[in-house]
Amino acid sequence: MRVLMPDRPEFRTLTLPGVETVFYPSFVSRDERQSAVLPAGDVDGLVAWGMPRTLRREAVQRPGLKWVLTLTAGIDGWKADLPEGVALYNAHELHDAAVAQHAAAALLSSGRGLIRFAQTRSWGKPGSLWTLKGRRVVVWGYGHIGRELATLLAPFGAELIGLNSRSTPAEIDDALRQADDLVLLLPLTAQTRFIVGQEVLGKLRAGSWLHNFGRGELVDTAALLAALDSGHLGGAVLDVTDPEPLPEGHPLWGRENVLITPHIASTTDDMSARAAGYAAEVIGQLTRGQEPKNRVRGEY
Amino acid sequence: MRVLMPDRPEFRTLTLPGVETVFYPSFVSRDERQSAVLPAGDVDGLVAWGMPRTLRREAVQRPGLKWVLTLTAGIDGWKADLPEGVALYNAHELHDAAVAQHAAAALLSSGRGLIRFAQTRSWGKPGSLWTLKGRRVVVWGYGHIGRELATLLAPFGAELIGLNSRSTPAEIDDALRQADDLVLLLPLTAQTRFIVGQEVLGKLRAGSWLHNFGRGELVDTAALLAALDSGHLGGAVLDVTDPEPLPEGHPLWGRENVLITPHIASTTDDMSARAAGYAAEVIGQLTRGQEPKNRVRGEY
Repeated sequence: MRVLMPDRPEFRTLTLPGVETVFYPSFVSRDERQSAVLPAGDVDGLVAWGMPRTLRREAVQRPGLKWVLTLTAGIDGWKADLPEGVALYNAHELHDAAVAQHAAAALLSSGRGLIRFAQTRSWGKPGSLWTLKGRRVVVWGYGHIGRELATLLAPFGAELIGLNSRSTPAEIDDALRQADDLVLLLPLTAQTRFIVGQEVLGKLRAGSWLHNFGRGELVDTAALLAALDSGHLGGAVLDVTDPEPLPEGHPLWGRENVLITPHIASTTDDMSARAAGYAAEVIGQLTRGQEPKNRVRGEY
Repeated sequence: MRVLMPDRPEFRTLTLPGVETVFYPSFVSRDERQSAVLPAGDVDGLVAWGMPRTLRREAVQRPGLKWVLTLTAGIDGWKADLPEGVALYNAHELHDAAVAQHAAAALLSSGRGLIRFAQTRSWGKPGSLWTLKGRRVVVWGYGHIGRELATLLAPFGAELIGLNSRSTPAEIDDALRQADDLVLLLPLTAQTRFIVGQEVLGKLRAGSWLHNFGRGELVDTAALLAALDSGHLGGAVLDVTDPEPLPEGHPLWGRENVLITPHIASTTDDMSARAAGYAAEVIGQLTRGQEPKNRVRGEY
């Protein structure tokens, strides 16, 4: 089996019996992307991790390709790129725990004023402060991460309401009107693009907070800014933005009640090591003829 | 029974059968403190809450005083002020849950980079990021709040080590050397004043974080600054400082890895209402001749 892998030390040093590995430049800068090239020859599999989009488009066209393992949790973009018959696996386990802890950090930080105090940098009035006890947290896109978040928040006394693709419009409406915090963990699809706009934000209770750990384009940024400016929204914690990266001078920056993190909700210092270990596990299963568990099927 | 109470709407509107209430100015500004006066006449009890120190010293000398209920969790200062034979009650239940959630917020925020990102305000490199999984959190002053914090952190996979007044020097030494995070919840006494200085900070692992939710004077500020400047300490979250309030221009301000909150770890929007309700409960017990549970005994 010949597998195309990210050129990172943690992947270079993997021991993979019966596997020939070739490497592509991974997590390269915008400038380096111009000159990035794929190694020659057919491959059976591709491990995608910080892969430039141009290389990815070229790689999926190699004739022998049978499977792709993306080490991300999200799978937006693959539908357009992947030829029929090529199996796609994702790696949500790599990300679930960190994103859930990141979401808990965001919910607690907004309540305890940490976002405001970190920005004001002076000994001032407390302003509005709360704990998560009795707080209604609506998780829109309630899957692996949402269930982990529910476990984390239970001892804090938060009341978690999960919405998923089987939730009816009436259930969604009811949940939004009760929300103290709305946490977005939805995948980005044609149906969810800009799903949080003026209408959804208007349904939220005055003073509620928006937290986006899904994809930037789930939210209509203009509507978000309007809801912040009017004071209807209490604040926002955004790990993903539209546009992304969020440019200097964008009106979302520099607000006491908005915290923006650079798409790192699932990042940890040991991420590359964990990703490489996970890839080795999946490749091991594939070389032994076993089916890895995270096959992505249907709409994506 | 005649009881001296804080002059706040939530206390003014309490219904207390068999109790005559008189009020002192509470949470007044520095300027107003000059002209603040106590109502005349003997009182049986005093509910202390945002009471100017001068009024407190005068109040505890009123001849008929039998008990004091302080609505704080900390009781530093009362030993010097209170005459022999006057019962002292505190109100740690009012504060435990919020402080524990505040501490959890601090631990998560430092790990998830929220403190840094809130201050840098630009889309940058992630820097060092971690979750609480496997993180060794040493809680020095392990009592009501510490046990609540242990419950909150359990699902995050943190390893909590509690130190209390029965811990031996060897146990303390061993815990400090393992700590990824050191959380201070100690009361301020002659024994704990400046307990965290150069020696203790030197025992901590390189890159560990200090969190102080006890009292500012538990920490030697000069030693803390030195440990931050040398890079030995990863960062700090301080809800209490020495001096307090921390003046503008103090070298603790404006550091990407230091978050300072203005002594609000136990504050919530409904704090005054909760405090008044708690006072009513304790006064009810005292008028019925029952002993309230939070009598402070011995050293304080």
